[in-house]
Parts: sequence; structure tokens; C-alpha cells
Amino acid sequence: MSSTEVKLSRLLILAQKFNNFYLTGFHKGDIRPFLVEGQQVGLIKSDVLKQLVKYPEVFCIRDCEQTKQGLVELNPAFRDYNERTEQLEKVLRNLRSEELFPALQGWRDEYFEVKSDHRALLKMERAATPLFGVRKYGVDINGYVRHPTQGLCIWLQQRSNTKETWPGKWDNMVGGGLSVGFGIKETAIKEAAEEASIPSDLVKNLVSAGCVSFFFESRQGLFPNTEYVFDLELPLDFVPHNADGEVQAFELLPAKECVERVFTPDFKTTSAPVVIDFLIRHGHITADDVVDFTQIVELLHVPLQSLYIYKTRLEQIQKQQKQQQQQQEKLPNDESNCNCGSLPIKPLENGHKKAA
Amino acid sequence: MSSTEVKLSRLLILAQKFNNFYLTGFHKGDIRPFLVEGQQVGLIKSDVLKQLVKYPEVFCIRDCEQTKQGLVELNPAFRDYNERTEQLEKVLRNLRSEELFPALQGWRDEYFEVKSDHRALLKMERAATPLFGVRKYGVDINGYVRHPTQGLCIWLQQRSNTKETWPGKWDNMVGGGLSVGFGIKETAIKEAAEEASIPSDLVKNLVSAGCVSFFFESRQGLFPNTEYVFDLELPLDFVPHNADGEVQAFELLPAKECVERVFTPDFKTTSAPVVIDFLIRHGHITADDVVDFTQIVELLHVPLQSLYIYKTRLEQIQKQQKQQQQQQEKLPNDESNCNCGSLPIKPLENGHKKAA
Repeated sequence: MSSTEVKLSRLLILAQKFNNFYLTGFHKGDIRPFLVEGQQVGLIKSDVLKQLVKYPEVFCIRDCEQTKQGLVELNPAFRDYNERTEQLEKVLRNLRSEELFPALQGWRDEYFEVKSDHRALLKMERAATPLFGVRKYGVDINGYVRHPTQGLCIWLQQRSNTKETWPGKWDNMVGGGLSVGFGIKETAIKEAAEEASIPSDLVKNLVSAGCVSFFFESRQGLFPNTEYVFDLELPLDFVPHNADGEVQAFELLPAKECVERVFTPDFKTTSAPVVIDFLIRHGHITADDVVDFTQIVELLHVPLQSLYIYKTRLEQIQKQQKQQQQQQEKLPNDESNCNCGSLPIKPLENGHKKAA
Repeated sequence: MSSTEVKLSRLLILAQKFNNFYLTGFHKGDIRPFLVEGQQVGLIKSDVLKQLVKYPEVFCIRDCEQTKQGLVELNPAFRDYNERTEQLEKVLRNLRSEELFPALQGWRDEYFEVKSDHRALLKMERAATPLFGVRKYGVDINGYVRHPTQGLCIWLQQRSNTKETWPGKWDNMVGGGLSVGFGIKETAIKEAAEEASIPSDLVKNLVSAGCVSFFFESRQGLFPNTEYVFDLELPLDFVPHNADGEVQAFELLPAKECVERVFTPDFKTTSAPVVIDFLIRHGHITADDVVDFTQIVELLHVPLQSLYIYKTRLEQIQKQQKQQQQQQEKLPNDESNCNCGSLPIKPLENGHKKAA
């Protein structure tokens, strides 16, 4: 097993970088839950809040009665998915025309669905999601080759200089956001054709390999991202070429050089987790080589699930659990366990005891 | 790609089961950080605390001056690794002879190293670690076969009926705890030989594939476990056989049947994360099939790192960050990012804002 002998500190620093909001963001100023239909679907920073107060017919900005926490709520009088979508979009188009947020200058006319508990609440212009801290989902394909002399090699793409985000940066071979109406593997197959002209007889070898989650912040806003990852082994003689104008080059790199590329300023920060996860899963970054290995793996899978639980919901759950607990102060016995037991419980602040 | 069509609820319920402490444990009664040399290395429940108060020369039980949180501290007067180890062991042998804790009846004369920030502080009898909520590390090997007609098949072992823990339960092909003085891959190779007689010409194909972390609680105590996982593709005609008396049977199961086995009461709960992670990485449990996919993946990688940060340390870090923040209120710009930036920051309560 060849190992890439990565220095620990650089990998951990990079994992901290693409989790800069997860690690320290909650301590910087006023961050408010964004609620739609009583469900928390996002987080709003004070610079965005300052603008939203100008639209009181669309956003209710208030303090929670129980927790005293500041909230931003989409007007609960809006009747349905369509009305919520239209009302929000009017505000977004206004903000865009005022040129207040760099994120909105990358307007794409491409929608992301905003969901809670698998229920679609509204759709939102993709470029606006960082302003509302809405969880974003995407797909990424690790295209790789088992080279007879160079070992594991990985295809990277260089993003077009004309792209709205991260122009000219190096990136995974294929990647794209999940848009309304498309399945996950379906999106991967579509992007594989558009971005890298991968024919159907090769794309049929696509292997779903999990997901990575991280929480990054840039001047564009908040990126609580989950990327579904796929691996695709390619024949030695296959060379990807772009079909949609979004990629300006492809390059095949041995695993070791690929790691070095990821550390350069020329690599898209929010694509680094996918490459690191791939190299870990394929034995090129190992626990024996990297002393901070478990920390790095944890930072590839941060618990976004539990960051979007609005406090009152949390308290309800705590109350329920207290009742359940009183009813059955019983723990599983190692010797007579049953894995089918029902524990319909949500994560609670990542298991942290609530401060008094 | 064949998919195992797993029902979502059973997988999520199982992931919640092996994280029962992570999800709800912190809300049940008095849980105290266990400190050695000022570093938090464990968590102590009230049933254990009740016994430790009887050894005031070994444990200082006090409230933190700043946070008012109850703490258990190993006497800081103990000079070094050896003295700490000996003093603690005396107490453990006493508790064992009093037969108060079922965990100690599984005494093995096998040591786990207790570390903080990669510094070894003491070693502790393996059977005692659940009483102190000390993070435990192990290795697991997923032995698998690509069968020409049945597809991906997985070797499972049935634990010997005479084992101290989980006797007779089904388990991963090979697994074992990391003991003092052994490397991670070294442990995997050693266990592969002892448990399944895997010869060196096969074990050389071992692929490091990451780790899973979860936080389980049973009547034995607390299990904040990290398992380093390895994959090993085996030839069709290889049949593992046990060499150390710890395994009573091996069975090769198609992926689909393997999932079903994991759901039965006959499967060791704390080995389930390794099998689920394997099936996810190899495309047999996919995001398109399982609606709670991202939640399940997060529960395979819970942030144990951030559960073992003692509050005052946490506050120091918060203070530092506030100072840093005042010095440089600057965020990375998407267009001119540098991935080599230095952010020597630890996770803070998983990014949660500290309640006032």
C-alpha cells in the first residue's frame, strides 16, 4: 500500500478552513435561525438581516417568546409553496438590483429546493442560498485510473474562467448542485455527460460512496454543504472533454500530486473535502501516517443535522425524552440486545448538556 | 449497481441505537468530566461516582470554580504515567473484587492507553474503560468477495460463547482493540492472523478505508468508540478459520442478507456502524434509496472530538478567538483563497453558540 505521507498539520488546517463557520462562526455576532412554516431551514447573519428588515410584509423579525432568541421568519400568512417562493423571489430580485450582495451577482435562474423533514417548503434561486444559510446539496464524481506504473491517479477539472463562482480554480472531475426535480444519481450522470462527456458505457460503473458534510463561510455567505460522492474508475485511454463550456481543462494526477494540488490556492476550497474523503477511503491517507486522522474524518462529516434544530423544537424533544426516561429507566443489556428497538429521537445539540 | 433496498427507518433507528448516549445521554442525570493532568479524558456517570468518592486519595471530586460544573480529577499530585497507572489500578482491582460493576467481571489484563492531544497520560485495564467513559479505539476488517453470481458478499464471524463481551453474537470478520504499543495497521494484521488465519499473501491487500465514531451506552458503561476500518478483498476459494478460540464460526453472506443479519438481535450492536459504513462506501446503501441517508452518515461519524473538551478550556479558546476576531474581521474571498492559511482552532461544542 503506497501512502502519500501527508503532513498532519496541513490536512487538519485545510479541514478547519472548509469548516471555518462550523468551528467559530456561531461565536461571531448575531446569527439568527431562519424559519419557514415553524421549521428552521437556515441561518441569517446580521448583514443580511439589515436588508431583510426593509421587507416587513415578507419577513417577521422577532424574538422567540420562550428562548428570547432572535428569529427571522418567512411570513406565516403565505399559503403555500408557490406563494412563499414568489414572495421571497421578489425580495431577492430587489436585493440583486441594489447590488448589495456579491453572491446575488452570480444569479443563475436555477432553483434549489428548501426542505424540512423531507417536506418541500419553497424553492430559492441557487445564488441566494448562502445569504440564508440554507443547506445545499450537490454531487461529485471522483474519476480515477489505476495506472500500471504511477498507481492511483485522479482526474481533476479546471473551472472555466467565466464561471460565477471560483473561476479558474481546480476542482473534482465532475460536480454539480442538486436542482429541483432531479435525483441524486441522475444528477451525477447528467453532470458527467455535460462536464466531462463521459459516455453511458462508462458512467454505468459509477459507485455511490457516501457523502461529506462541512460548513464553510466566505464573503459570499454561508455554505452548510452536503456533497454526495461517487467513484468512477476509468480506462487508461479515456480522456474527459468538456461539453458545456464550464470547464477549461482536465488533468490526470497521481494521488500524491493530487494532494499537493488540493493544498494550493488554485484549488476550490469547498471541493477539497471530496478529494480528502476519496484518498482516505482508498487507503492513500491513513491513520498510521496522519496523527490527526480521526479529527479530519470528523470534519468531513460535521453534524449539520443538529445545527438546524430551532431551540423550541429542541426543548419539546427534551421534555418528551424526560417523560420517556421516567417511564423506562432501562438500558440495553449487552447480552440480550435487540437491534430493532424503536428510538425515534433527534440529535440534541450534538449530545451536549444544555447549559442552565 | 445492485441496491439492497433498505428501509430507511430501520437503518436510522439502528444508527440512533448505537448512538444512544450521543443523542440523549447528556440529559440523563449527573455526567461529570474526568480530568487527568488538567485534560478531559473521560465522562463519569453517577453510579461510578458513588464508588469513586470512597477513594479521596486517588480522585478529587469538586466543582469547577469558573463553570460550577462537577468534575472528577485524578489526583494531580501523582507524578507520572506509572504512578497514575498504578494508583488507578489499585482502585479498579478493589472495585472488581467488590463485584459492583459487571464491566469489571470481564477483566482481561490488557491495557488501553489514555491520551490527550497525543500525549499518553496513563494506561487502564481495557474492561474498565466504559466506567470512565474513556475514548476507545479499535480496528475492524471488512472481508469481502466479489461473487460471480451473488455479487458483493461479506464474511462475518460469530463470537465465541466464552467471550466476556457479546458472547455468541455475529460480528465483522476481524476486529480488535488497539492496545498499548501496537500500530493501527499492525493491529489489523495481527488480528487477521489470530482471528481468521489470514495468510500474509492475502493480508498484504488490506486497504485502509477511514474510521467510524459513535457513542453507545449499555449496562456495562459508556462506549465513545472510534473504529479504524480496513477492507480486504478475498479470493472466492478462501475460507477463514479461527486460531485463538475467540470465534466459533464464519459465514459468507450476500450484501442484502448481511444487512438483514445486522438488524437481528444476534448482531453485536457496536459492530453495526462498520458494516453500514462498508455498504455505503461500496454503493449498496445509497442516498437515492434511503431518505435519511445524510443523517445516517453523520451518525457514523459523531464528533467525539468536541465532546471531550472540558468547559474551562473551551472558554479559554472562546476568549482567544474573540481577540483574534477583533484583530482581523476578515473572511476568505472566493476569488483569492489560499488553502494554506493557518487556523489553529479546536471545535467548540460542535459550533454551537454558548447559551448565556
